[in-house]
Amino acid sequence: MTQRRYLLAESEIPIPAEVLDVYAMWRPTPLYRALGLEQALGTSCRIFYKYEGGSPAGSHKPNTAVAQAYYNQQDGTRRLATETGAGQWGSALAFACAQFGLECKVYRVRASYGQKPYRRILMETWGASVVPSPVADPDSPGSLGLAISDAVADAAPRADTHYSLGSVLNHVLLHQTIIGLEAKEQLAAAGETRPDVVLSSCGGGSNLAGLALPFMGDPDIRLVAVEPSSCPTLTEGRFEYDFGDTAGMTPLLPMYTLGHEFMPPSIHAGGLRYHGDAPIICNLVQHGRMEAMAYPQGKTFEAAVQFARAEGKIPAPETGHAVRAVIDEALAAKETGEERVILFNFSGHGLLDLSAYDDYLNGRLIDA
Amino acid sequence: MTQRRYLLAESEIPIPAEVLDVYAMWRPTPLYRALGLEQALGTSCRIFYKYEGGSPAGSHKPNTAVAQAYYNQQDGTRRLATETGAGQWGSALAFACAQFGLECKVYRVRASYGQKPYRRILMETWGASVVPSPVADPDSPGSLGLAISDAVADAAPRADTHYSLGSVLNHVLLHQTIIGLEAKEQLAAAGETRPDVVLSSCGGGSNLAGLALPFMGDPDIRLVAVEPSSCPTLTEGRFEYDFGDTAGMTPLLPMYTLGHEFMPPSIHAGGLRYHGDAPIICNLVQHGRMEAMAYPQGKTFEAAVQFARAEGKIPAPETGHAVRAVIDEALAAKETGEERVILFNFSGHGLLDLSAYDDYLNGRLIDA
Repeated sequence: MTQRRYLLAESEIPIPAEVLDVYAMWRPTPLYRALGLEQALGTSCRIFYKYEGGSPAGSHKPNTAVAQAYYNQQDGTRRLATETGAGQWGSALAFACAQFGLECKVYRVRASYGQKPYRRILMETWGASVVPSPVADPDSPGSLGLAISDAVADAAPRADTHYSLGSVLNHVLLHQTIIGLEAKEQLAAAGETRPDVVLSSCGGGSNLAGLALPFMGDPDIRLVAVEPSSCPTLTEGRFEYDFGDTAGMTPLLPMYTLGHEFMPPSIHAGGLRYHGDAPIICNLVQHGRMEAMAYPQGKTFEAAVQFARAEGKIPAPETGHAVRAVIDEALAAKETGEERVILFNFSGHGLLDLSAYDDYLNGRLIDA
Repeated sequence: MTQRRYLLAESEIPIPAEVLDVYAMWRPTPLYRALGLEQALGTSCRIFYKYEGGSPAGSHKPNTAVAQAYYNQQDGTRRLATETGAGQWGSALAFACAQFGLECKVYRVRASYGQKPYRRILMETWGASVVPSPVADPDSPGSLGLAISDAVADAAPRADTHYSLGSVLNHVLLHQTIIGLEAKEQLAAAGETRPDVVLSSCGGGSNLAGLALPFMGDPDIRLVAVEPSSCPTLTEGRFEYDFGDTAGMTPLLPMYTLGHEFMPPSIHAGGLRYHGDAPIICNLVQHGRMEAMAYPQGKTFEAAVQFARAEGKIPAPETGHAVRAVIDEALAAKETGEERVILFNFSGHGLLDLSAYDDYLNGRLIDA
């Protein structure tokens, strides 16, 4: 066997039966063709989306939350601590902990805690305990980096508690590849040889990686990361070693970063407000295998509303970034008369982010 | 051919291709076995639920909304007017109208309009126009009956507008039978000969009828309607001809009714706050083919939280009534050592009703 610079000799790792049992609550997720959107755009592209909004927590996040809760339970952990911004990750972990009988403590970015109560209630319904972060400064609106610091500080001294992260790290991206693996089979079943372009929104990078990594081996497939202009990690960050959190408690990671003290403006796509990005994603961008682009949030909500009217489903603000890029990709192909096959990840629904739609529809959105 | 007292000679009516195309956005809906709940209850019953929460609007309501929007469009209607309480029906019709290019005007019970803004935003995102009802009395909290009157008054004088109702009437129940028809095939595929009991929550009766009517022909299958104690139409109402709305503008319907001026308390299960019930459901109850039972809302939220922790999915407050009855049915079977097969309709998710869960979890729920 050829020696490669991989950490593991195996190219695939089996999913434990206990994890598959929980996945069966909503997986495999459907792959939809966006016929309504194609018609609305008058494009000759074929647009497919993997719909991760049907999980109990409403996003792709449970794919890794369930795996992490399982491995922790097997390892004797009794309690998990984590951070969350808009609440997608915290609610996913709360759900997963309920499945494996673990306690769950969530440090939630204070701005989100106050403005968007629904995902807090969701976490509490699943039995988790949720507190606003930063704990030490009740006047601060908080940030993901600060909340990570709070969660790590909770877990570090306690033998019964582990810290759990919902994106960025290699094992998280690995868990998410079930998205792309399923999509590959489903595209083939739909008679498509391959997608021409695979894209998704990128905050920490896990939903993008989950869809895109299984397609990485085919050099003819373009891979695209879509981020917010207000937190332009891949498009304007420096590539260097940086901390994953604000307080500097995590190991250093090689990544594009805006600096671990960067405080992004309060856009609605809370899941994309992160100063860094997954090292694997950064590596792909650095070596030119993956493209990166950025949009202001007004353009993403315009696209999300168009999608909602054509396809019914309400995209999360994060997912709206992918939808914007898909629409622009399809319109560009229309100009040149190309028939591209576009695949994107509908990473989560926006039913708990409807106040953002209200702001957009009534002209109150800050177009950061 | 034997002459029967049916309005139609055919026992089944084909679904138009245009309606099936829209259904394909989320149908067939999954039939889940509630293994987590079975385990939590320690029951030897097998519990199955038809999951209607995955539709764009999050409930079973689009099944009829799409059909009604389609037939209206075919008929040259340009605009539909309707009423809604919690917003499940209004959002379903808003979605359906967006699919067929119709305008949509929704009169929403004022109490819900103010307390639960998310479904208003959902309707507006799909392009509908939403106003609080009763229009003529800004101090009244409103009721479904009053909102029906507003919508009928809107549509009656306008040639371009039809009124659309989301439950109660025969054609609505017919559209919903796709739920039970799919469930029958899915149960068979799961190796079950038949369910012993089929149950669901009952407000106007359409989600219950949609699941139960296709099983009606087998006399060994028990059919059960579950309603709120605070609006006990089937369990305490009189069987007589009554109006469907408060103002008395609709035709008279033969049904169990609390009187068309009955004003139920403001429980969270807004979809179950209706003074009457579908004539078909009432007929089945009157002739002893269907049982009816009622629960106070505290007991239904207790069951809904237990379900959420065991099964992940958050039931709508309406659906919580079915869950309560399922749990009690399974516990009763446990006492007697029976192995019942229980089938119920998970009629909608509660992601836009989380404030109700917040009230329950924090002891603020009025146990009406």
